[in-house]
Amino acid sequence: MRQPELLQTILNRRSYRGRYDGAPVPREDLQAILEAGLAAPSGCNKQTTSLIAVDDPALLADLKKLIGPPVCATAPAIICVLTRPIIAYGDRTYFVQDYAAAIENMLLAICALGYASCWYEGHITDADDIGGQMAKRLGVPEDYRLVCALPVGVPAAPVREPLKKPFAERAWFNGFGAKE
Amino acid sequence: MRQPELLQTILNRRSYRGRYDGAPVPREDLQAILEAGLAAPSGCNKQTTSLIAVDDPALLADLKKLIGPPVCATAPAIICVLTRPIIAYGDRTYFVQDYAAAIENMLLAICALGYASCWYEGHITDADDIGGQMAKRLGVPEDYRLVCALPVGVPAAPVREPLKKPFAERAWFNGFGAKE
Repeated sequence: MRQPELLQTILNRRSYRGRYDGAPVPREDLQAILEAGLAAPSGCNKQTTSLIAVDDPALLADLKKLIGPPVCATAPAIICVLTRPIIAYGDRTYFVQDYAAAIENMLLAICALGYASCWYEGHITDADDIGGQMAKRLGVPEDYRLVCALPVGVPAAPVREPLKKPFAERAWFNGFGAKE
Repeated sequence: MRQPELLQTILNRRSYRGRYDGAPVPREDLQAILEAGLAAPSGCNKQTTSLIAVDDPALLADLKKLIGPPVCATAPAIICVLTRPIIAYGDRTYFVQDYAAAIENMLLAICALGYASCWYEGHITDADDIGGQMAKRLGVPEDYRLVCALPVGVPAAPVREPLKKPFAERAWFNGFGAKE
């Protein structure tokens, strides 16, 4: 069964850094977004990614203070992405790939449900360790790392398209840079 | 506009390691899958991921010899994922996250178009450096790494569900391990 409308959602997804309108995100939608994240594949099925959705007003306010406005400042919900940096086999780890795939699934689910978001990872994991402070506030054990915050909400402004290189500079058939 | 059918595709996607039937993958479908991959976000929009779709029979046979049967052995097409491990800002890199998000987009697109696939990364990037040999055969410059092979085709056997931990062990609302 072909479902070409999924391709359109993938092409339409954008990073949104603007304000959110006041509309709350129903629990049912947050649950569906979390389920989409957990459905991502993981290296050797180690399922290294865990998730915390935050919609409690007091807790949300505390996290937003740690994150620092304007990032996430008007979001009615924030999904925090946790990882356990464990070995998959030998000396190989795939926890970064695992949480990235989970995040992409959630961004698509967020988009499919009519919301907007943005992948905030660098801001959270830079030297000032905002993610570590958020993890403490959320009672996260020390063997987990909080690596990403995803705001979820209805965008109050237009969602802009990024400038992307043309297809022919990044993808080819049957050889690097091949022209067929 | 809500598109809940996308959530179903995300939940239905599975890793498939079985045989493919003989049906070829039309160029139009490969093109759509590549476009889905390129549509993934990337850290600081560095667009570190590039892609090569292989459907030429002679080239495909050479790659399959390098990969080693049974992995990808019966696939009518293989998408090779390339990355450039470049700095996004300061000393931070996001190329792993970038290609993982692109791979997840492609796996979903593959599934949405009625095909199956599997994320072969460890096999390609282990110490025997199969990816490096594939990159040479494809004319990939030395500043790129070939990190993943995605077979694409119509599955000849049932696609099995993996054993996954229950939701309550991996996702919570408003606190780690919280019961509401």
